[in-house]
Amino acid sequence: MTSPVVAGALTRAAYFVSDSTGVTAETLGSALLANFPGIRFIKHTIPFVVTDAEARSVVAAIEADHAADLDPLLFVTVKQAAVRGVLAASKAVLIDLLAGHLTELEQALGTTASEQLGNYHGLGDTDRYFARMRAVEYAIEHDDGQSSRALDQADVVIIAPSRCGKTPTTMYLALQHGLRVANYPLTDDDFPTEGLPRSVAKYAGRCFGLTTTPLRLSQVRHERRPSSRYSSLEQCTIELRRAEDLYRRNRVPFLNSATKSVEEMSAVIMQTMKLRA
Amino acid sequence: MTSPVVAGALTRAAYFVSDSTGVTAETLGSALLANFPGIRFIKHTIPFVVTDAEARSVVAAIEADHAADLDPLLFVTVKQAAVRGVLAASKAVLIDLLAGHLTELEQALGTTASEQLGNYHGLGDTDRYFARMRAVEYAIEHDDGQSSRALDQADVVIIAPSRCGKTPTTMYLALQHGLRVANYPLTDDDFPTEGLPRSVAKYAGRCFGLTTTPLRLSQVRHERRPSSRYSSLEQCTIELRRAEDLYRRNRVPFLNSATKSVEEMSAVIMQTMKLRA
Repeated sequence: MTSPVVAGALTRAAYFVSDSTGVTAETLGSALLANFPGIRFIKHTIPFVVTDAEARSVVAAIEADHAADLDPLLFVTVKQAAVRGVLAASKAVLIDLLAGHLTELEQALGTTASEQLGNYHGLGDTDRYFARMRAVEYAIEHDDGQSSRALDQADVVIIAPSRCGKTPTTMYLALQHGLRVANYPLTDDDFPTEGLPRSVAKYAGRCFGLTTTPLRLSQVRHERRPSSRYSSLEQCTIELRRAEDLYRRNRVPFLNSATKSVEEMSAVIMQTMKLRA
Repeated sequence: MTSPVVAGALTRAAYFVSDSTGVTAETLGSALLANFPGIRFIKHTIPFVVTDAEARSVVAAIEADHAADLDPLLFVTVKQAAVRGVLAASKAVLIDLLAGHLTELEQALGTTASEQLGNYHGLGDTDRYFARMRAVEYAIEHDDGQSSRALDQADVVIIAPSRCGKTPTTMYLALQHGLRVANYPLTDDDFPTEGLPRSVAKYAGRCFGLTTTPLRLSQVRHERRPSSRYSSLEQCTIELRRAEDLYRRNRVPFLNSATKSVEEMSAVIMQTMKLRA
């Protein structure tokens, strides 16, 4: 996907090349590039580059971008020295996210690396696989208060008004960390009472609340039901105020999701609920 | 969680310290450590270390592990030089996963970093947030063939016999990449016919199949229904053979999930279906 160069804007190609999924190269590389907001980057993630031939096809793509004045950057997480060598011969600036640190580690540990890199997740990691599968199925069953069958087994119960981010956060905690997370929507029915909704009250100690800003909530709800009472700024303001009162009255820890990513919310929840292994 | 040192086995503490969620530090650090299978690592992930005080409490934990002969390693993704300075003064071997690369980038780009690191996901990234939320909700609605309401909007339809890994892979693609993924279970009813199940046949071009090994499938199914026909090696063998025949007859690309992580399966699916942006 080479896009045309935008006149005026400085544009560079950025390749994230991995012998595994490329997620780490893409995440760390993008985090690094986020420090250069003045430059536009056309990003390409290329996973499973394990042979010289695969590396050469990456090099070919880089040459094309180079010819198009996109001065490619090349972020690499590849363990095979031979493959890295092919990539290093390209016209790109190479940022090796692994090799250097591996050398530091060999010195620190006084032993040589086994080149098993990439096996960290994947092959044979059956326990983690089971845990994640169970956790995701648990999350689906207990999403949006649909079931309370195994609520007693929840590591966390996320409570919040509709559209504050319960579901994506729940799924992330299940997938990334194998945690059993239920979530329960707070509706107008839940507010007359002082306490937590009956079905989650038993698990008050495991409840975590989400809130957001009325403007943001209204914006998100418009996505679903444009210009409805549900998405009106007035209704959103009332629901959020009531939810936050409920959290405080019942000593339920909570966070504001308005400016946080799913990853950040999940990390805060794990830290607050002491779920970090 | 400091565990007792196992007699004989070489054990080291490993800290993953970040000014953000710590996911990148933990993933890359663990991938690096996976190269040293002879050493046991007691891992600690500490997110949101942004103040000197927070850094000093990390240093205190490190000193304790050092006193316990756990010779700590410290993997750091922290942008603030001051905070990194506090951590660097600890008794741990410091592996800085960012600072060095940032310097390389500043040279390559001929400009200085803005220190906005961490803003890559999170603050203001509203579009990505909406995309993920929609994708996760889509995945839940269209999980396990429960709905075909918006099947026409699917980026991928994952088909497989029960317990081959459809659901976690679906959720990962939705959460990590914001893709609309439906999944559909292949049951004995689907096999008499030559073609794909009626409800997904229209979308044959978007179907991707999963298979696994009979032994693995039987093992996974035992988790759910011990010693049932459903989990018997014989039944698993038949279902997988029929599923693979179905994939081949209908030119549905497929992969074997037995030795792959959710991340790896997702990357293969995106690559095969050309969904990598």
